[in-house]
Parts: sequence; C-alpha cells; structure tokens
Amino acid sequence: MNGAEALIRTALQAGITACFANPGTTEIPLLQALDAVPGMRSVLGLFEGVCTGAADGFARMSDKPGFTLLHHGPGFANGIANLHNARRAFSPIVNIIGQHMTWHVEADSPLTSDIEGLARAVSASVVSVRSAADLPSAFAHAIEAALCPPGRIASLIVPMDCLTGECRGPVRASCAPRFPSVESQRLSLAAEAIRIGKSTAILLGGRALRQAGLNAASRIGAAMNCRLFCNTFPARLERGAGIPQVERLPYFPEQAIERLSSFSHIILAGDREPVSFFGYPGLPSRLIPDQCKVISLAAPAEDATEALQALAEELQITGAPIAAEAARPERPRGRISPRSLGEAIASVQPEGLILVDEAVTSGLPHFLLSAGVPPFTYLGHTGGSIGQGLPCATGAAIACPDRKVLAFQADGSAMYTAQALWTQAREGLAVTTILCANRSYRILQIELARAGIEKPGPQSAAMTDLTRPELKWVDIAHGMGVPAIRVETADVLAEQLARAFAEPGPHLIEAML
Amino acid sequence: MNGAEALIRTALQAGITACFANPGTTEIPLLQALDAVPGMRSVLGLFEGVCTGAADGFARMSDKPGFTLLHHGPGFANGIANLHNARRAFSPIVNIIGQHMTWHVEADSPLTSDIEGLARAVSASVVSVRSAADLPSAFAHAIEAALCPPGRIASLIVPMDCLTGECRGPVRASCAPRFPSVESQRLSLAAEAIRIGKSTAILLGGRALRQAGLNAASRIGAAMNCRLFCNTFPARLERGAGIPQVERLPYFPEQAIERLSSFSHIILAGDREPVSFFGYPGLPSRLIPDQCKVISLAAPAEDATEALQALAEELQITGAPIAAEAARPERPRGRISPRSLGEAIASVQPEGLILVDEAVTSGLPHFLLSAGVPPFTYLGHTGGSIGQGLPCATGAAIACPDRKVLAFQADGSAMYTAQALWTQAREGLAVTTILCANRSYRILQIELARAGIEKPGPQSAAMTDLTRPELKWVDIAHGMGVPAIRVETADVLAEQLARAFAEPGPHLIEAML
Repeated sequence: MNGAEALIRTALQAGITACFANPGTTEIPLLQALDAVPGMRSVLGLFEGVCTGAADGFARMSDKPGFTLLHHGPGFANGIANLHNARRAFSPIVNIIGQHMTWHVEADSPLTSDIEGLARAVSASVVSVRSAADLPSAFAHAIEAALCPPGRIASLIVPMDCLTGECRGPVRASCAPRFPSVESQRLSLAAEAIRIGKSTAILLGGRALRQAGLNAASRIGAAMNCRLFCNTFPARLERGAGIPQVERLPYFPEQAIERLSSFSHIILAGDREPVSFFGYPGLPSRLIPDQCKVISLAAPAEDATEALQALAEELQITGAPIAAEAARPERPRGRISPRSLGEAIASVQPEGLILVDEAVTSGLPHFLLSAGVPPFTYLGHTGGSIGQGLPCATGAAIACPDRKVLAFQADGSAMYTAQALWTQAREGLAVTTILCANRSYRILQIELARAGIEKPGPQSAAMTDLTRPELKWVDIAHGMGVPAIRVETADVLAEQLARAFAEPGPHLIEAML
Repeated sequence: MNGAEALIRTALQAGITACFANPGTTEIPLLQALDAVPGMRSVLGLFEGVCTGAADGFARMSDKPGFTLLHHGPGFANGIANLHNARRAFSPIVNIIGQHMTWHVEADSPLTSDIEGLARAVSASVVSVRSAADLPSAFAHAIEAALCPPGRIASLIVPMDCLTGECRGPVRASCAPRFPSVESQRLSLAAEAIRIGKSTAILLGGRALRQAGLNAASRIGAAMNCRLFCNTFPARLERGAGIPQVERLPYFPEQAIERLSSFSHIILAGDREPVSFFGYPGLPSRLIPDQCKVISLAAPAEDATEALQALAEELQITGAPIAAEAARPERPRGRISPRSLGEAIASVQPEGLILVDEAVTSGLPHFLLSAGVPPFTYLGHTGGSIGQGLPCATGAAIACPDRKVLAFQADGSAMYTAQALWTQAREGLAVTTILCANRSYRILQIELARAGIEKPGPQSAAMTDLTRPELKWVDIAHGMGVPAIRVETADVLAEQLARAFAEPGPHLIEAML
C-alpha cells in the first residue's frame, strides 16, 4: 500500500470522513487514494482559507478533527488566517501540507518555501515526514496532537514521494481525548469563593458552554446568586429556549471592565482570563479589575463541565437550572438596522439552527434578542481574523447535514473568503447567508471616532469606505452559483429568510443597512 | 511629530508615493498621517493578497519599493502567497505590519499571533520596532534592505504606540541601489567559453531582460552564434518588434532538458541555474545536463546588463543586435482555444502594453505569437503561487498610468484574489482582464495524465473540475464594479479586446474555452 492510501485509511479509521481540500501537483497521489479508498467526502475549496475555515466549523460542530489537504507553503499560507481563528477556538485541525519530492526540495524551485516556519507560526505540532514508511504513524500522531485537549492545530508536511512510496498500511490513532478532571482543591477554592464572595461571576468557556455545562453553572448561579458570563467571542455556545442564559462580555474594554467591576470574585470555568481585544491608552489589557479575586476552576484543557457539576455537589445544591423561556420578537418592519436585522433572524430562525456570527458591528442586537428562540448553536468569531464566517458556516453544514446554518456576515469581512459560496453551491449545503451591507469597514469608523477623529480626512475616510464602487453581493453570489436577493426592508428580510430556511441548498440575502 | 507621520514622510523622501493598504485598528494613526501628509496615494485592497500582489507589480514596473500596510499577523498571512511570488521576482517590497500596543502583546488577546515567525518565512529582513523614536530609522533601513540587489522583502512590525509616540522626524533612506559589477575574471571565463564552445546558450534574467541587456546579449548571440534563453517565468521581460528575442525554457523538465542538451556551454547572466518546477520520478531537478558546462557571468544580485556589454567588448563584437521584426497574427475566427486566444491578443495589443501572465495552461501560444507585436512588457508568474495575476496587474497599472495593462488570467487562479477587480474599479485603472474560462484546474488534469491516470476516478475528477457550479465571471466582475462580457468566439474576443483597450478604466472579458 502506498503512503497516500495509508494516510486516507488512517484518517477513516480515526473517524475522519471529510477532507477540505485545495490540492496541487504534489498531492496528486492523495487524489488517487481518495478514489481508491471509499468513505472520505472530499470538499473542494477554491481558496485555502475556505478549507481551513470549513475545517474549523466542522471541528466545532463535530468535535472531530477538521482535516485539510493543502498545497505547499504559499497555499498553506492562504489558510493561516482561518487557522488562527481555529487555534483561538481550540478546534482540533489536522493539516496535510504537500511538499516537493524529498530530493527536489534543495533545488529551491519556484514554489519552494519555508513551510515549517509558516506552519510553526500557527500550529501546536509541525512534523515533516521523511519517508513513506513513517507517514501513517506520523499522521496518526498528528491526529492525536490535534485532539489533545482543548484542541490544537497539527500540521504534517508530506513530500510527494512519501505519498507514492510503499508503507505497511494505516495506523490506528487514539481518538478519545479525555479532558482531565480538575483537582479537588480547586473545587474547594471555588466553593469557598462562592460562599464568602459578596458577589461572584462565573466565566464559562469551551465545552462548558453546552447544555450540561450551562445547566450545572445555572444551578450554581441560581442557588448562590452568581452571574454567568462568556467571552465576547465564544467558539461555540448553545442558546435559546430551555437552555440557561449567559451574558457575553462587551467588546470594548471600558464596558467590559465596568461590567465586571461589581464582582468580588470571578471563577473561570473552561476559559482563561478575559483580555481586551486591542490595547487602548489609559486602559489595562486585563478586563478583570485588580480588586476582584480570580479563581481558576478549570483551564481550557480541563473538564470544566464535570468541574461545574462537582462544584454544584460540593455546594450541596439541589435546585434546578434556570432555563430561558420561549420568547421571540415580532417580525420587524421598516428599514434595516442592526436591531431589525436581529429581530428578523430571531423571529424566524428554526430550531437547531447553527448561527455563525461574523456580523461584526451588525451582530450584537440579535444576540440580545435571541435568548428565548428555539434552541440554536452560536459560533463566534474567535480569533478576530476576518473572513471566518462563510467558510466556518460551510464546514458546520458538512458536519451537521440535518441542521440549517445561518452565516450572519459583515460585507467587508465576507470579501476575504467569498469563494466559500461556491463550495456551498457545489455541495448543496443548507447555508443561508445574511450579508449585512453597510458598505464600510464600520468597526474602523467607530475606532476612528474613539480615537477622537470625528471627521476623518479623505484618505482615512476612503480606507474605511466600500461604496466606490458599491459591492453587489447578489451578482457575486450568482457568479458562484448561489441564489441571491437584495432586500431593503426588515419585513422583506424576515420573509426571505423564512423562505430560505424552508428551501434546500444555499441562499444569500443582501440586507441593505 | 508622531511616528506615523514620520513613517509616511520617510517613505515620501525615499520616492515611495503609493501605499497598498488593508489597515485595521492598530494602523489608525497611519490613516491619520496619510491625511496629515500629502503625496501618498493610498490604494485599498479588500484582501491582503491584493495589496502584496499589487506591491509586486508596482515594484516590477517602477523599480521602486512596493509599499504595503497590513494588519497584524493573520492579515499579513493573507498576503504571504503573493509576497512569495514577489520574492521569486526579486521585487523590492516593504511591509508595514501593524501590531498591538507594545504593552498589550503579552496579554495574548485574540488577534495576537507569531508575526515575526510568519514574516521571517517570506522576508529577507524582519524587524520589530520597539519605540516611536526608533521607527523612522528602522523604516529607512527596511527600505534600504528591500532595495538591496536584486530586490528583497523587508517587513517591519510596528506596534500601535510606536505610531502615536513622538520621534525626531523622518530619516532619509539611501535609495540608489547599485547592482555590483562583475569581476573581470568572470568576463574572461565567459568569453573563453563562447570562443571555444561548440554551442553556447546564454540564460538571461533580472534586468538583463530589458532592452539594454537584450541588445548586448543579442549582439553576442549574433556574432558568436549563441542562443538566448530566459527562465520559464521571468519576472519582467521586454518584448516585441524592435527588441531582440529570447526563448523561454519549457515548463516540463523533460522538454527543458531536451532543449538545453544541445549546448556545450551555458552562460548565466542575471539568473541562477534553472531547475524543474516540480520533481518527477526519473528526472533530475537540474535542467542543465551534466555534460554541459555552466559559467556564471552575473548572479541575480550583480549587474548583468553591464556584464553583457563588457563581454561584447571583450569579444570585440562590432555588430548590431538582431531585433524582432514587426509582425502580428491575423485576427482569429472560430472557437476560442489557447491558440486563438494568443492570436486575438497579439493581433490587437497596443504598444506599451504590460501583459501579466497567469494564464497557466492557456498562455503559451500568445508568447510564441507575440515576438513581433508592438513593444510590450511581459510579467511572468514567478513563484508559482496562484492568485498573482489580478493584483500584479493592479499594481503595474498604478506604477504606469500611461500604459494599458492586460491581465491574462486563468479562471482557477483568478478565484484566489478576485477582490483585485474592485480595486481596479475604484482606482479607475486601465486593466483589461481576459479570464480564460476552461472551468478546470487544467494543469492538474495534465499532471494526472502525466502520472499515468488517463481516466481519473470521480474524486480526482471532482477536485480538478470547476463546472459544478459554473463560475460566472461576468457576474463576479459586475459585483465588484468592473464592466464585463462573456465571449464565445475568437473574433468577438479580439473585437471586445480592442474595444476594452480603447476605453478608460477596467474591463473583464470572460473567454469561454
């Protein structure tokens, strides 16, 4: 068996059944292996950032490794931005990066680059395979490295002759990663803090933001009067009627610091200490005020859900969690604003929706309006590198073929990886994109105002303005095979959204803000 | 004066008057400086690969540094693929990469990444600025590093507080790089080889592929019966009626080796030894057969033009160069093929055209047909990382506002950086794109056939096929504000091309192969 076939078989044995690929000449043996070995769904992205972002979305929704197949160093480089977001989401990702024949690397031919250097900048594990014989075990190790809690990026650089050479066959990877339990001492410290604290907040992260973790946290919160928070950009948050609510920390540091300043104790459960997204003069990086005591109950790599359940037991709590009650806003009317956008989505979103939020400045109202809508999964913009939304939605739809996906998407950011629309069309994915067309890098305009520049000069204004020429998203979507419509009012938006959710395949709705 | 203003003034003093930008929050002080200091043309790209590719095209056509302004690590990462191509073109590029406030980096906030690691993988020089006081001189040094022959990538990582902090003002960079002269001994060796060689080829590269270098090489070639070659993918080649011709080395190694095997001596003038693009079983990386003697007259970082002129003198050559005679193919008729594409372009291309070739499998016939067309500049796909063409054409048009630019562009590759069309529309650039719509990664289909796979299985076939769904380039172009038309025959193609060249602003012609 050649290395390529053993690689695909190793992946299948590890339960990996989807490959997000943009292959080149050096990966041709893997294409042959995909035909030789049945069972792998190979999903073509017309840009590597689509593949890595889709792998991230897939991993967040399946807890399996997102598996990418990328071409050489510069091709891999195109995928780094969304790997950065995946790294911040703690998504397990395995990248296969093609490389020249081992004997051809030193010729320094045009496509040759410092692949290891590029991969190292964004991966927890980087291995260059030296022979076909080593390939299957190296790949199995990469899968294990990716699944190592809380989830990491593992990159394997595979020369072409390691794909064509003979090896002994697939290697079984150990794929049941355990998030280690926390020590009992930390339970006691957290329990003590909750008992003595004047006011306590619990900051939840990672898998603690799913039903079991939220239930445990909510039971504690209800019984002991603790507030529940999550980071501004959670990787994955379960939400809606029947699920306990958490409050998202505000984006701007002065607001977050203000929000946290009333607590004497903050318990971290599956997240690290929150920090400001950017540094601003006169404001600290840390969002937790100095007078507030921080207790780490569970680190991101530990079992925060189990820890919260144990903490509830330690506190002898018998009460139930407080689930959000069913409630939806009315369908909105009139012009489209961030608020009516949020109302439109919340008023029609179906149960089980996966909402991928890269709406940036247009997104907040929906979050505030959606506590009581039918249960849905919220995927946040973890790493701040724009162009995450459309690819992430693509991968989430591959992971969950029975659920609807909404890409709630800012226009400036969508331009980075719009190629994902083509993959959605090819794969017939039930992804609806709401393209929030405010025709600007609105967040930069806000930051200019925050910096005291009320009237930006022509060059500053031009650098944040997307109206010259106007982007026509209906045309862009049609160009990639996705049915699309432009809407100018909130009622038509809600109507079109309901229609898109009811139909199969992808849709794009350009909402003119 | 703050660091941002001193930076812009340092650039202007160095003759840099265009900035290819995709700024973010940490670069806001630079936006203010662009308003405060007149003279810098700030060109917005809606994806960083547009900015870096445009900087490359600008540098190739102006010999000035291409200047980019990029946001943080992941944003910079989006620009790496085209920096890779620029590195292989020996284009001088200076990147300003925004970074958090110095005191905020250690907070490891979401956007924080290993910027130095990323930059190092593709830059000859990477410097992290530590204070505003250091910024102007660090930037001047970066400009000098970029201009160091034959042209390099220099990346400067600039924390936000180094932009807002006070400094002493701009620093003058030394901007007249000298390509050093070659030692006389090498002239003698080359002259000796030409005199004694049974058959000699001269492989020209870098600036030797402009009129003066080509004239000198042609005089030698004519008098001493030497053949003139250039690499398969020259960064910049002057071509057409009145200019001596060079032959491009074939892409596939067996053909290149065959072509070079008849020479007893090969003289390198401004290029290094040619190597195969990919490694193939049974074929060497080196394209020059072992029995052939290689003489390096001038390395890429040396003055190859001067060396060729001196070599002609050493050989006491008095004859004139052989310039290509004026000749154009007839306007083609019938269906569109790579050949009729080439005929259509060659039959109507205006004098002074800059042709950016990322046509991949559709491009070769035009090269063969265009020896005698009105003089034009050919920019090749140097690094093999796809997505170079549209951005490179954008930058070339900014560098040469009085010339027409043709982006001769493959469809699969165009998808990587299609956002460049928007910049062309915004800036009103005279760029015409011929989109060669063969609706496939045709080069991969060829490579599959070369690997002996005559009938690829469904997965291999799917990974090289762009028909499900079909990309509609007219829609994509309209979506970004570029007038576009689809053409099905070669005569309409030639007609539309002539019309596009006659009109101002950008155009896209989708040629259905």
